[in-house]
Amino acid sequence: MEKLYVIKIGGNIIDDENKLKTFLSSFAEVEGKKILVHGGGKLATKLASQLGVEQQMIDGRRITDAETLKIVTMVYAGYINKNIVAQLQSLGCNAIGLSGADGNVIQSHKRPPLRDGGLDYGFVGDVDVINTTLLKSLLDQEVNVVMAPITHNKEGLLLNTNADTIAQEIAQSMSALYDVQLIYSFEKSGVLLDVNDENSVITTLTHAYYQELKTPIQGTGVTRIFAGMIPKLDNAFAALGKGVKKVIIGKAEELQKLVIGESGTSIQEG
Amino acid sequence: MEKLYVIKIGGNIIDDENKLKTFLSSFAEVEGKKILVHGGGKLATKLASQLGVEQQMIDGRRITDAETLKIVTMVYAGYINKNIVAQLQSLGCNAIGLSGADGNVIQSHKRPPLRDGGLDYGFVGDVDVINTTLLKSLLDQEVNVVMAPITHNKEGLLLNTNADTIAQEIAQSMSALYDVQLIYSFEKSGVLLDVNDENSVITTLTHAYYQELKTPIQGTGVTRIFAGMIPKLDNAFAALGKGVKKVIIGKAEELQKLVIGESGTSIQEG
Repeated sequence: MEKLYVIKIGGNIIDDENKLKTFLSSFAEVEGKKILVHGGGKLATKLASQLGVEQQMIDGRRITDAETLKIVTMVYAGYINKNIVAQLQSLGCNAIGLSGADGNVIQSHKRPPLRDGGLDYGFVGDVDVINTTLLKSLLDQEVNVVMAPITHNKEGLLLNTNADTIAQEIAQSMSALYDVQLIYSFEKSGVLLDVNDENSVITTLTHAYYQELKTPIQGTGVTRIFAGMIPKLDNAFAALGKGVKKVIIGKAEELQKLVIGESGTSIQEG
Repeated sequence: MEKLYVIKIGGNIIDDENKLKTFLSSFAEVEGKKILVHGGGKLATKLASQLGVEQQMIDGRRITDAETLKIVTMVYAGYINKNIVAQLQSLGCNAIGLSGADGNVIQSHKRPPLRDGGLDYGFVGDVDVINTTLLKSLLDQEVNVVMAPITHNKEGLLLNTNADTIAQEIAQSMSALYDVQLIYSFEKSGVLLDVNDENSVITTLTHAYYQELKTPIQGTGVTRIFAGMIPKLDNAFAALGKGVKKVIIGKAEELQKLVIGESGTSIQEG
């Protein structure tokens, strides 16, 4: 099967014009078919504060009320998405920017409020299905896809959706058609054994080792692995279990090296 | 050749939730291939004022400075475009929302400042070329296209672009592949002989009659036709001269009637 790279960039890269530029130049040079999934970054938070829309965060997750949904739709699917596409075009890399509503590429449902705590994330979507036919048709026309983290429920509602999850779901679904390599790229050099030491990159992270690192150190409740990495790593292992050939986590500016396995953390089953 | 409808809706329709809903229901029901081009509406102006970005208007045209470009990209290509697409999806009408940068669908160049008056419209694009191949491929997959009035110069710059002109340029270029009917739909019932009388619709406007209406009444400098309609009508006649089969101007809420020629003004050569 042909290769497909599904590459996610985090918000910290989007917020830094130079890092984003470096990343996009590398992305444009990755040979073969590719899908870029971008996160949000601080611009939405900044805009919300300028507009006096209060942002509620719980455990690092934004609560998406109606006003916030408007803002993230504008910023993610409008400003960020279109600027990435325009930059890629200027690099000779043909790209099309989509939200999940476009061509019904990602259908989701509004996450029901958590029963016990009564926690309601608001207009947040959990992915149901990926339209692989349209994605494949675009890729076949040498058009690279740039996905914004906004989906829809096919009932007229746009929904704010976690970009890591979108990357995972696309990678999984496209595995039926391609040899998929999923790359989570962000500001760190990979999965770090010590979150404060960029030289502590775990080169190969097996599932068994991950379980060990995830187990709280006795009597402390603290895990050896940085807690903020756990959702991303859970996504990564889930993807491997569902047909994705390879998952790499590493630095956005080293994308070329990530692609050939010379940098970052390689996630492996077993 | 197969039929293609290129339908433009004006900002006043976008600003009115109910009118937009009615229009989109009709649009979803138009049989055959179709491209919707939407304008901007007041939301961008409102957002600019909330953010303290001063809007300079000359002859009803917005001067697009860097901050305004950010705002229109967010509002037109983000909020408006994605909400229209999500609504169409809920009506069972598969649609994909694009800016001109996406898939390099519309390449433009930044309008050079007018020499004499020194008038600079800022980040405004004049259309150079339409990518008919990608548009046709999407239409062939039964995906209707929804165009936001934002284009790019292929050098990384997004550009604010007149939606009437985008509709005209798409209609002209697609005429090589389809029997194109171009529909300008807005809040009025058609081209009015008396701008204050909705019953004064000109059913058929020939080029000769248009020239007559456009000639200023002797000694007054005032044209018989409402001056604000002139750019739209110039676009309409230009389109007919370049292969478009039919141009209709009329009320957005009467789209079904416009399509079958039972409402609005039919623009005709000769």
